[in-house]
Amino acid sequence: MQAIMKTKQEKGFEIKETKEPEVLHGTDVKFKIDVASICGTDHHMWVYDAWAQKRLPPAIPFIAGHEVGGTVVEIGPDVINIEVGDKISMECHEACGTCYQCRSDRMHICRNTKIFGVDKNGIFGEYAVIPELNAWKNDPDLDPALASLQDPLGNAVHTVLPKGLTADEGIAGKNVFIAGCGPIGLMSIPVVKMFGAAQVFASGGGRNMQRLEMAKQLGADMVLNAREEGDKIPRIVRDATDGNGVDVLLEMSGNVHALRQGLEALTYGGRVSLLGFFPGPIEFDINTLMVSKGASVYGIAGRRMFQTWQVMRGILKSNEFQKQLKKLITHRVQMTEWEKGMIEIDEKRAIKVVMDPFK
Amino acid sequence: MQAIMKTKQEKGFEIKETKEPEVLHGTDVKFKIDVASICGTDHHMWVYDAWAQKRLPPAIPFIAGHEVGGTVVEIGPDVINIEVGDKISMECHEACGTCYQCRSDRMHICRNTKIFGVDKNGIFGEYAVIPELNAWKNDPDLDPALASLQDPLGNAVHTVLPKGLTADEGIAGKNVFIAGCGPIGLMSIPVVKMFGAAQVFASGGGRNMQRLEMAKQLGADMVLNAREEGDKIPRIVRDATDGNGVDVLLEMSGNVHALRQGLEALTYGGRVSLLGFFPGPIEFDINTLMVSKGASVYGIAGRRMFQTWQVMRGILKSNEFQKQLKKLITHRVQMTEWEKGMIEIDEKRAIKVVMDPFK
Amino acid sequence: MQAIMKTKQEKGFEIKETKEPEVLHGTDVKFKIDVASICGTDHHMWVYDAWAQKRLPPAIPFIAGHEVGGTVVEIGPDVINIEVGDKISMECHEACGTCYQCRSDRMHICRNTKIFGVDKNGIFGEYAVIPELNAWKNDPDLDPALASLQDPLGNAVHTVLPKGLTADEGIAGKNVFIAGCGPIGLMSIPVVKMFGAAQVFASGGGRNMQRLEMAKQLGADMVLNAREEGDKIPRIVRDATDGNGVDVLLEMSGNVHALRQGLEALTYGGRVSLLGFFPGPIEFDINTLMVSKGASVYGIAGRRMFQTWQVMRGILKSNEFQKQLKKLITHRVQMTEWEKGMIEIDEKRAIKVVMDPFK
Amino acid sequence: MQAIMKTKQEKGFEIKETKEPEVLHGTDVKFKIDVASICGTDHHMWVYDAWAQKRLPPAIPFIAGHEVGGTVVEIGPDVINIEVGDKISMECHEACGTCYQCRSDRMHICRNTKIFGVDKNGIFGEYAVIPELNAWKNDPDLDPALASLQDPLGNAVHTVLPKGLTADEGIAGKNVFIAGCGPIGLMSIPVVKMFGAAQVFASGGGRNMQRLEMAKQLGADMVLNAREEGDKIPRIVRDATDGNGVDVLLEMSGNVHALRQGLEALTYGGRVSLLGFFPGPIEFDINTLMVSKGASVYGIAGRRMFQTWQVMRGILKSNEFQKQLKKLITHRVQMTEWEKGMIEIDEKRAIKVVMDPFK
Repeated sequence: MQAIMKTKQEKGFEIKETKEPEVLHGTDVKFKIDVASICGTDHHMWVYDAWAQKRLPPAIPFIAGHEVGGTVVEIGPDVINIEVGDKISMECHEACGTCYQCRSDRMHICRNTKIFGVDKNGIFGEYAVIPELNAWKNDPDLDPALASLQDPLGNAVHTVLPKGLTADEGIAGKNVFIAGCGPIGLMSIPVVKMFGAAQVFASGGGRNMQRLEMAKQLGADMVLNAREEGDKIPRIVRDATDGNGVDVLLEMSGNVHALRQGLEALTYGGRVSLLGFFPGPIEFDINTLMVSKGASVYGIAGRRMFQTWQVMRGILKSNEFQKQLKKLITHRVQMTEWEKGMIEIDEKRAIKVVMDPFK
Repeated sequence: MQAIMKTKQEKGFEIKETKEPEVLHGTDVKFKIDVASICGTDHHMWVYDAWAQKRLPPAIPFIAGHEVGGTVVEIGPDVINIEVGDKISMECHEACGTCYQCRSDRMHICRNTKIFGVDKNGIFGEYAVIPELNAWKNDPDLDPALASLQDPLGNAVHTVLPKGLTADEGIAGKNVFIAGCGPIGLMSIPVVKMFGAAQVFASGGGRNMQRLEMAKQLGADMVLNAREEGDKIPRIVRDATDGNGVDVLLEMSGNVHALRQGLEALTYGGRVSLLGFFPGPIEFDINTLMVSKGASVYGIAGRRMFQTWQVMRGILKSNEFQKQLKKLITHRVQMTEWEKGMIEIDEKRAIKVVMDPFK
Repeated sequence: MQAIMKTKQEKGFEIKETKEPEVLHGTDVKFKIDVASICGTDHHMWVYDAWAQKRLPPAIPFIAGHEVGGTVVEIGPDVINIEVGDKISMECHEACGTCYQCRSDRMHICRNTKIFGVDKNGIFGEYAVIPELNAWKNDPDLDPALASLQDPLGNAVHTVLPKGLTADEGIAGKNVFIAGCGPIGLMSIPVVKMFGAAQVFASGGGRNMQRLEMAKQLGADMVLNAREEGDKIPRIVRDATDGNGVDVLLEMSGNVHALRQGLEALTYGGRVSLLGFFPGPIEFDINTLMVSKGASVYGIAGRRMFQTWQVMRGILKSNEFQKQLKKLITHRVQMTEWEKGMIEIDEKRAIKVVMDPFK
Repeated sequence: MQAIMKTKQEKGFEIKETKEPEVLHGTDVKFKIDVASICGTDHHMWVYDAWAQKRLPPAIPFIAGHEVGGTVVEIGPDVINIEVGDKISMECHEACGTCYQCRSDRMHICRNTKIFGVDKNGIFGEYAVIPELNAWKNDPDLDPALASLQDPLGNAVHTVLPKGLTADEGIAGKNVFIAGCGPIGLMSIPVVKMFGAAQVFASGGGRNMQRLEMAKQLGADMVLNAREEGDKIPRIVRDATDGNGVDVLLEMSGNVHALRQGLEALTYGGRVSLLGFFPGPIEFDINTLMVSKGASVYGIAGRRMFQTWQVMRGILKSNEFQKQLKKLITHRVQMTEWEKGMIEIDEKRAIKVVMDPFK
């Protein structure tokens, strides 16, 4: 079969002819790729940046990609809850199941995780084989392009709803500040609206007007240009919230200024989810901004296996929510044209690029 | 001033001329009644049923009513966060502040609670005086009729979001079964929709088609006639939820059959809120329906002081939600015509009756 | 090898020569039984009571038993976190891993569960083979007899700490009422003491003075004879708790009177765990005892996989706790003498019976 | 009456004759001081350091002190749950009751807080008057010296049990790392032991061997000298916890190295409470140490009003716990000798100094 592969320890991917994967274990599920979408991680690997150089396994070549909608074509004898013909997506983290984290409802931060499309073959091909546990059965009539977006949408949902929250710390009726309007930050806007947020504030980097524009279209009540408003942001947000500040801060930018502004805009006893990737150590006044404020701060990695997916199944039943999510698909290409999509991402013209399968 | 009062230990209310209340304590807030609505409790007191005969204080006469939207006209010297001219509603439970429950974030189930309009004068008059703590400042442009509905809406919101829930047990993306379509059951439908529920099932008593019709208009995905479907309800609900059953049961009926059916329709490890009033002891198979099912069951009394109100402030910012809530106001009368409204409730033609003020 | 087997659909077990189990799957773990203990479930199967007649699979004969301490002798090629020589115990519920419950941190109430020693071969033999997931690695120096008790101890710990609790609803500094002094009720006493309970009340059935005596030795602050005190119990408990009642009720008896008394003794907003098995439908005043009380009630089944085990690992590090737990081992026999142990249980002279292995 | 007062905006306190306070409001409670203890805050005010210069109100002179055990001598007419003769301690934060935080179970971080002994008269005198809400009724037979320690003990308990935790994130059976052995860090050791911690690691600054010695006496399983072990601490801790790291980090030092080491020693998905005061902005690798680790981090301010006090009432029922707490009282003087006590603290020879009353 054909596949988009990382073949060398340098910039680039290439399309290769490779062996079709087979059902080898009792719990294996084989599926045909119907749609794939491109993740920031794929872009990092293509660019071969510092992160990729450090992270990529020696075992190159491998098939890239992990955001997918597909159809099951074969199952192993021990598969229980998936059938041939089922429409599925894929949880890209393969957990060991028996480490300390896996045994305490933290499988998404398993100490022995392998990621499909990074540590082993992914889904930018014609077929893929994964364990039943990693196969997520979609509603049969869900658009495969939306099904494929569940990977980043899951990051958004998990950031919005980290584990262990009490009802008070939920989203219903709360004011929310989303710092950073990348794909996942943008997705968070309809997510928190769907969960009953009162007012949603979104801030973004400034040059990229398209993203702030999109934030507005997705339902943000106030969009803040970080380049122009800068340190005035906390005051603007507090003024719009009876002087209290927001209840929830979703840090999606990996920018220390945004983090500081967000924490200043947070109400006493508010909560914070940190998803953004900070490229190096950061400096801030933890005493004023976290400790004496009585803040609750959650580091976010991946998405919960599989409570986050269950929440996604529920919210994807809403036509209104599907409509919002579709807006984020700014480009759609054939897999053979993958490079075109990658360049749109590289030049920050694309939010999400969806690819139709080979053939 | 004029007021609708309970004057005798028998059926009925009457309009009387009575002394206008005064600011006596430093933390007192005096307000003009702009709108009042009639609660089921008012109806019980009017009918003077078994509950009322047992519950009413000897200190009759008193002013009835506790659902209200008003405007502050005077404040005591120790009032901090309320000003003259503020638009307010009222939390009707006056808590002692220092008992075991009050000192552990359970002020709504204070052991020394007094209820305005039951244990002391209420708001079916021209003015009322309450402590600052019981005064809830509304957004200034909120329709006073909707402001008044926050009392029963608060019961709905608290039933939907009891304290101590983890995110998994929230509403976002969950399937919800609402057993009972009285005013609070009906209000719960737009509430859970607002909080991101996946599918909402609502069941009701059967004869009263108006309520099941209303449930549909408020957004229920499936409406079940308990009279006709009866014991088939659990199967119907499971069939519509991939065989899993619902994640959340809101028991709003006080009917043991509805409780049993709801518990049968609940998924393993699901959660239940009990708000409905059961007139006497009930019998059911607790072993099968709660214990081995690993269910979490929450008894609901009142509404949280004041987290529930904070959630309401947030969701009332949504025009869509306001629109749904308004549908429940089926009748609007002058306070002088209170008896007309009461009869509409008595004959089950009204859902909520809103009253405009004297003069 | 030899094994104690259920061989017929009638009362009794018998020792048989049977095939030693083998490592067949990649994730299989084979272990030598060092110690086994007898569970109430084993007793039910031996008696062949109504529950057993309904529950036992047609596939008789099978090896009974599921409480065990053993030593790993062989592992399959896909085993990651267990090695030959490791000391292990066994989680007796084999979950499917991919149903709705398994995918939402409720693996212990999996819809496709199979139980070792009931639905398939157990551990009353010389060797057993189980998936790595079901093998729980013990501290190497833990007494195998205590290791074996982790199965019922896990029920106790899970009853004490059901999922989703907030800190307020924890045990530290709380007053706790344990209704029922069977083996698991008794185990709960040192567990809640270990977790920082303030006062512990324990009630028991009356005739069996040994159990109430044991409750006292295990640290209960007040022991209540349900036969003698009866309906005075709620008042006695409230008097000893500043009139507030207990914060936590652990229902371990399956007796409706005990449930009612416990709920009456509960403070407003308190919490309840239900573990006891009620033989049929029960009747009680749910309105007064749960709803208006604002109680939180948790049905308990099994033990969490594997957070409960992780908690047990921690508390078993305490010598003081081990000392208390050992008191519950009232009888110790050879596996060949299993019938002697069973009769001690049958005649209610034994609390826990531990068996040393064949040979 | 006599009182130890802050009389000038410079270093020092002095004993003055001042007016005995009176019951002025309906909810006032007047009490006789039986015992007072000296807090780090008192020491800061005495030294008149940078914090004190910034924080102290212009309204000098005022009576210092807020850690107290006393006896009620008079109550106002609206006091409900306190009587003359009751033994009480004092919650030193006077909250407004109606701000956003007060209305959402976060009264301890009220936006309008005033602190007794800082913003208004404290308890280093013969009598004091406070609202009923701030009076905490002790068990009548509790040693007043221990009663007085409930103020810092409350900080410890609140750090150990911040709000909103699920059972998994509790203390029972968990491994805990306490970074910093000041009075509150030391108090945390018997607290977490009382709550069922598995292993307790405590680290301290190095020069002060007395404190590390005390940590051991209070039950720490491993004591780490930060001066000597430094960056080896994370590895030492992981080695002692099966390679997993600790479940809970209590940051009590306000030292960035200790914070970094503690976060490195934390297991994936573990939780952190931050109580230590960091004198300025800090720098650390938030990405590795919080975000990708999936850590939950809680800023801690004060103690919960009044759930923390309720937990303290419970654990103070244990003689064993009282015994441990008493060890921390290293010095006991008369109020007239306050300066002697203060100097012992200043020279770091004292852990807690308790003062007996004037006369």
